[in-house]
Amino acid sequence: MKLDRLVGDRFKERPSDCVVESHALMVRGGYMKNMANGIYSQYPPLRRVSAKIENIIREEMDEIDGQEVLFPVTLPGSLWEESGRFQSVGSELLRFKDRNHSQMLLGMTHEEAAVHLVREYANTYTKYPFMIYQIQTKFRDEARPRAGLIRVREFTMKDAYSFHTSQEDLEEYYDRCYKAYQRIFARAGIPEVVVVASDSGMMGGSVSHEYMLLTPVGEDSIVLCGECDFRANMEAAECIIENNQTLAQADLTLVDTPDKHTIDDVCEFLHLPVENSCKAVVYQRNEDDSYVVVFLRGDLEANETKITNYLGGAIHPAVITPECGLAAGSIGPYNLKGDYTVLYDKSLEGIDNLCCGGNVDGKHYTGLDMKRDMPEAEYGDFAKAIDGGICPCCGKESLRIERGIEVGNIFQLGTKYTKTMGMEYLDSEGEKHHPIMGCYGIGVGRLAASVCEVSRDEYGPVWPITIAPWEVHLCCVRADDEECKEFADKLYEELQKKRIDVIYDDRNVRAGAMFSDADLLGVPVRVVVSPRNMKNGCVEITTRDKSVSRQAELAHAAEAVQELVEELYAQINKGAEAFQ
Amino acid sequence: MKLDRLVGDRFKERPSDCVVESHALMVRGGYMKNMANGIYSQYPPLRRVSAKIENIIREEMDEIDGQEVLFPVTLPGSLWEESGRFQSVGSELLRFKDRNHSQMLLGMTHEEAAVHLVREYANTYTKYPFMIYQIQTKFRDEARPRAGLIRVREFTMKDAYSFHTSQEDLEEYYDRCYKAYQRIFARAGIPEVVVVASDSGMMGGSVSHEYMLLTPVGEDSIVLCGECDFRANMEAAECIIENNQTLAQADLTLVDTPDKHTIDDVCEFLHLPVENSCKAVVYQRNEDDSYVVVFLRGDLEANETKITNYLGGAIHPAVITPECGLAAGSIGPYNLKGDYTVLYDKSLEGIDNLCCGGNVDGKHYTGLDMKRDMPEAEYGDFAKAIDGGICPCCGKESLRIERGIEVGNIFQLGTKYTKTMGMEYLDSEGEKHHPIMGCYGIGVGRLAASVCEVSRDEYGPVWPITIAPWEVHLCCVRADDEECKEFADKLYEELQKKRIDVIYDDRNVRAGAMFSDADLLGVPVRVVVSPRNMKNGCVEITTRDKSVSRQAELAHAAEAVQELVEELYAQINKGAEAFQ
Repeated sequence: MKLDRLVGDRFKERPSDCVVESHALMVRGGYMKNMANGIYSQYPPLRRVSAKIENIIREEMDEIDGQEVLFPVTLPGSLWEESGRFQSVGSELLRFKDRNHSQMLLGMTHEEAAVHLVREYANTYTKYPFMIYQIQTKFRDEARPRAGLIRVREFTMKDAYSFHTSQEDLEEYYDRCYKAYQRIFARAGIPEVVVVASDSGMMGGSVSHEYMLLTPVGEDSIVLCGECDFRANMEAAECIIENNQTLAQADLTLVDTPDKHTIDDVCEFLHLPVENSCKAVVYQRNEDDSYVVVFLRGDLEANETKITNYLGGAIHPAVITPECGLAAGSIGPYNLKGDYTVLYDKSLEGIDNLCCGGNVDGKHYTGLDMKRDMPEAEYGDFAKAIDGGICPCCGKESLRIERGIEVGNIFQLGTKYTKTMGMEYLDSEGEKHHPIMGCYGIGVGRLAASVCEVSRDEYGPVWPITIAPWEVHLCCVRADDEECKEFADKLYEELQKKRIDVIYDDRNVRAGAMFSDADLLGVPVRVVVSPRNMKNGCVEITTRDKSVSRQAELAHAAEAVQELVEELYAQINKGAEAFQ
Repeated sequence: MKLDRLVGDRFKERPSDCVVESHALMVRGGYMKNMANGIYSQYPPLRRVSAKIENIIREEMDEIDGQEVLFPVTLPGSLWEESGRFQSVGSELLRFKDRNHSQMLLGMTHEEAAVHLVREYANTYTKYPFMIYQIQTKFRDEARPRAGLIRVREFTMKDAYSFHTSQEDLEEYYDRCYKAYQRIFARAGIPEVVVVASDSGMMGGSVSHEYMLLTPVGEDSIVLCGECDFRANMEAAECIIENNQTLAQADLTLVDTPDKHTIDDVCEFLHLPVENSCKAVVYQRNEDDSYVVVFLRGDLEANETKITNYLGGAIHPAVITPECGLAAGSIGPYNLKGDYTVLYDKSLEGIDNLCCGGNVDGKHYTGLDMKRDMPEAEYGDFAKAIDGGICPCCGKESLRIERGIEVGNIFQLGTKYTKTMGMEYLDSEGEKHHPIMGCYGIGVGRLAASVCEVSRDEYGPVWPITIAPWEVHLCCVRADDEECKEFADKLYEELQKKRIDVIYDDRNVRAGAMFSDADLLGVPVRVVVSPRNMKNGCVEITTRDKSVSRQAELAHAAEAVQELVEELYAQINKGAEAFQ
C-alpha cells in the first residue's frame, strides 16, 4: 500500500506517559492508541504484525494436531461456579449482570469453556488425546496496567487445552507443545526466549513452564544457573542456603536494642553479621485475617508465593495492631506467645548464635541456637532465591537473577477442572475416569511488544521479517523527479506481482522525514530510489538493522529485493528448525 | 484432517429447541454448542466456515482500499457519552463497571471508537477519503435471541467506517462498497441476496441499505416490486393507496355498534367494506407517556418505525386507561376531544363515506367525509405497504411482501458522530468542517447460518466450496479392506500435496453412518473409495448437491478431484465477477 494513505500518525516526541521503549515507539509509530486504562485500539501496522503472529501460532498449533475452535468472550457465571473459580478468583475477573440480571463474566482464560465444549463428546477413551485452541479477545481487570501492550486489560490471546487419559500421555503432548512454542518464538524472531519452571498459581495443576524473554524492563524475576540448565521464575525457584558457622556458640541473652526496628539496624548496633540473624515477616490470611509469622535468615526475603502454596490459601502483608500481641520490630521465635501460624525457613535449620527479636519492644536475643532453643521447629522453603546462590540442580553457587517478560506459558492442569466439572470418560474396561488436562497460552499483543522491546534502536522497532507489518519499504526520494517516480512506480508494481508485501512512500517530503517514518515502521528491507542512485543505474537495498547494504542494477532491482527477502526468511526459519 | 479426530458430536435427533433448520443442522452436525442464552461456542467445522467467510470479507474490503484495524470489545462509557448514545440506546447496550467503578460497555457497534482512532490523524482534507474496518467480537444484549446464529447476543462482525469531505465522495465510495458487498455474498454462495432501502434506526444518518437473503424463516419483512427494481424493507417502504370511491356521499350519522370493538366487526355489522372505514391505532411516547392517535384506512396496518421517525422519539403501544379520555374500540377523528397528538395516514386523504369511531363507547359514525368533516387534517405516510399494493417506483400494483434475513447493511451516517465528537479537518481554504461518515456491517456467524438456511437438504448443509469447512470429503468405505485402505491413504496424501483441504473418514463404521456424517458436514466434493469401486478400477466423485457424479480411474483420481474442485470455485467466482 501507499504510505500517504496509511491511517495513523507518526511523530518524534516521546510521550511522557511511556515507561518502556517498546511502548513509546509503538505510540510514536502509529501502531496503537489508548482508549481507556489498559485498553488500546490498533492501527493498521499493529493489526498486520498481530495477524502475522497469529498465523505463525495457528500453523504451529495445527502442526501439533490442534483444532481451532472459538469460545465466547462473555461467559455465564454459573460455568465458573462449577470449577469454583467464580469465587476463588479476585477482582481481576470482571463480573457483570446482563439485562435479565443473569450473572456473567468476561473470559480471562477458558478452561471451563473448554471442558463445557467437549464434556459430552469425549466420553470414551478412543476419543483421546486431543487439543483444541482459540485465538480470541480476553479481558483481565488488572489493577495496574503498564508498559503499553505488555500488561493490558483487554488482549488477544491464543489459548489451547489438551485432554488425556494418562499422565504419560499428557507429558508426551506437553513436550510436543513445548517444542512448538520454541518454534513459534524462533519464527517470531526471538529464539533467545528461555523456558523456566514456574508456579501454577490460580490455574491449578503442578508442573508448569513460562517462556521468558530476558529484558531489564520485564516485570518477572527469573533465576538462572550459569553452570547448568536450571531456570525457574522467582516464585518457583528453590532457595538453598548453606550456613557456614563463623561464630562460637553462646548463651541466649536478652539485650536492649533501643529504637532499632529493622534487622539490619539491630545487627549493626550489635556488631553482628546479618547472616547470623533471624528476621520475622508477618502476613495475614485473606480468609480470616489470622496471623502467619515467617522466620528466615536476616539477609533473605520471604517468597509470598511459596508461603501461599504451603498454606493453601491467599495471604496479604499483616497490619500489626496493638491488640494482636506481636511486638512489631522485635518479633522472634523464642518465647513467642499467641495463636499464630509460625513457619521456619530452612535457611535457619541447624544455625547457631543468632540474634532475633525478644518479643518485647526494644529487646532482642543474642546467642539463639535453633537446635538447642527451638527443638520443635520444622523447616520449609519460604525464601526467595538469591543472586550468587546455590543452584538446586547442579549445586554450584552460580545462580543469577534476571528480569524477563513472560511471552507464553504451559501448564499441566491434572484433573482440577474435569473433576469439579464432572467430565468423565470410559476406559477400555468400561470404568469411569476424569481426563487429565494441559493448557497453553500466548498473548499476541504482548509478544509483539516484547519483540519490539528487544529488537529496536533509538529510531524505531526493527521487526523480524516474519512479523513485520510489511516486508519491503520502498522510498522514492524526490517523487517530483519524473524519472525517479516512474521507476519507483514500476518497481512497486513488480514487487506486488511477486507477492511481496510492500509499503510505498512516494510523498513529496524531505528524505529525512521519509527515513524517520520508515524507521518507525521498522520494515526489514528498505529500497531507496533517488536521483543519485538512478544516475548510477542502481537502487539501494538495505536492511533496517543496517547489517546488509547492497546496490542493485535497475533492471534487476525486483529480483534483488526478492532475494534479500528470501534470505531474511531463511535465516529466521533456520533457527526455528532447530526445535523439531 | 482425519474425521475420527474431529472434536464434536454428530447425531440424528432434531433438538427440540431449534425453530429453524439451519440451527438444527448446525447443532446436529457438531458446529456449535450453546453456552448461555444467545451465546455459543464454535466447534472446528464452524470455526473453519467462519474463517473462510472472514477471509473473503477481508479480501473484498482490502480491494476497496479498506485498512484493517482492531477496536476494543470493552469501551469506556465516556466515549459513548460523547455521541449521546450512552443514554439513547436501550438495554441491548450492555453497561457495566470495572474494578475501579469506571463506567464501561460492551461494543455493539464502533462508530465512536472509529472516530476516536482517527480524529487527530485526519485533521486535513489531504488525508481523505479513507476507510478502516475490523473483524471482531461484538455483544448486543438481545431480549429474544433466536434461530441459532441468526440472532445471538455475542457475535463476530466485520464493521467498516469510511470518512469523506463531501457527500459526493461518500456516495461514490458507498457505491464501491455496495458492489464489494455483492461480491462478498456471491463468493459466499448466495448471489441471490437482494439489496433493499432501509430505515437507519439508532445509527442515525439518512440513506441506508440492507442486504437481504429471502427465506420464510427471516425475521424481516421486505417489500419487492414484481415489475421494477424497487426493494425496501417494511420500515422504509412507502405505502401508496388509491382510493376508488365506490360509495355515494352520505351524511355524518352516529349509529349504535353495541359490543363491536374491532374495525372488522364494526364493518361487518354495518355491511360496509373495510376499505370504507377509518381505524385508530394508539401509542404512547416513551419520554412522557403522552398519547399519539394514528388514523388510517381500516384494512391497513400502522408502521411504528415511520411514526417514530415522524415524531422524532420512541413510542410504545398505548395502555388506554379510563382517565385518558379515549373510548377504546370507538375512537374516531370526528369530535375527538383531548390533548393527543393526532396523525392521519395518507390512505384517508380525500376519502368519503367512511365509518369511524364515535368517541363514545358502543357508537360509530357513518358517512364521514374527510374533506368536508376534517378539513384541517394533514396527511403523512404512517402505514405498512401491502401485498399487491402500488409500487412507489413504477406505480404499478405489483408489490409483494417476503421474509428475509438481513446479512449485511450499509449506512450513510452524515456528520452525526463527527459533529457530536468534535472531529474536524481543515479544507484547502483553511476552513474547518466535520467529515462525513459511512458505515458498513456484516455478521460472520449470521452469514454462515443464512447460507446454511438456503443451501441444505434434510440431511445437512450443502456448503458452497468457498466457505465449506473442507473442500473434499474422502470416504474409505471398508477401512478393514487392505487394498481400499492403502489406496485411500495414498489418495489422502496426494490431495493434501495438491493443497486441497480434505477431511478423511477411514473409520471402521458402516457406509450409512459414514455418509450421514458426511451429509452433516456438507463438504461439496465427496470421494468414495470402496471395494466395489476398486474392483472397477475407479473411485466415485460426487457433489454434495448431487448435481455431479463421476467415476475417475484410480491412477488419475487426485487430478479428477482437483478438477472438480476448480470447477466449483470457477462457478461461484464467475457469479461474483458480475459485480465489478
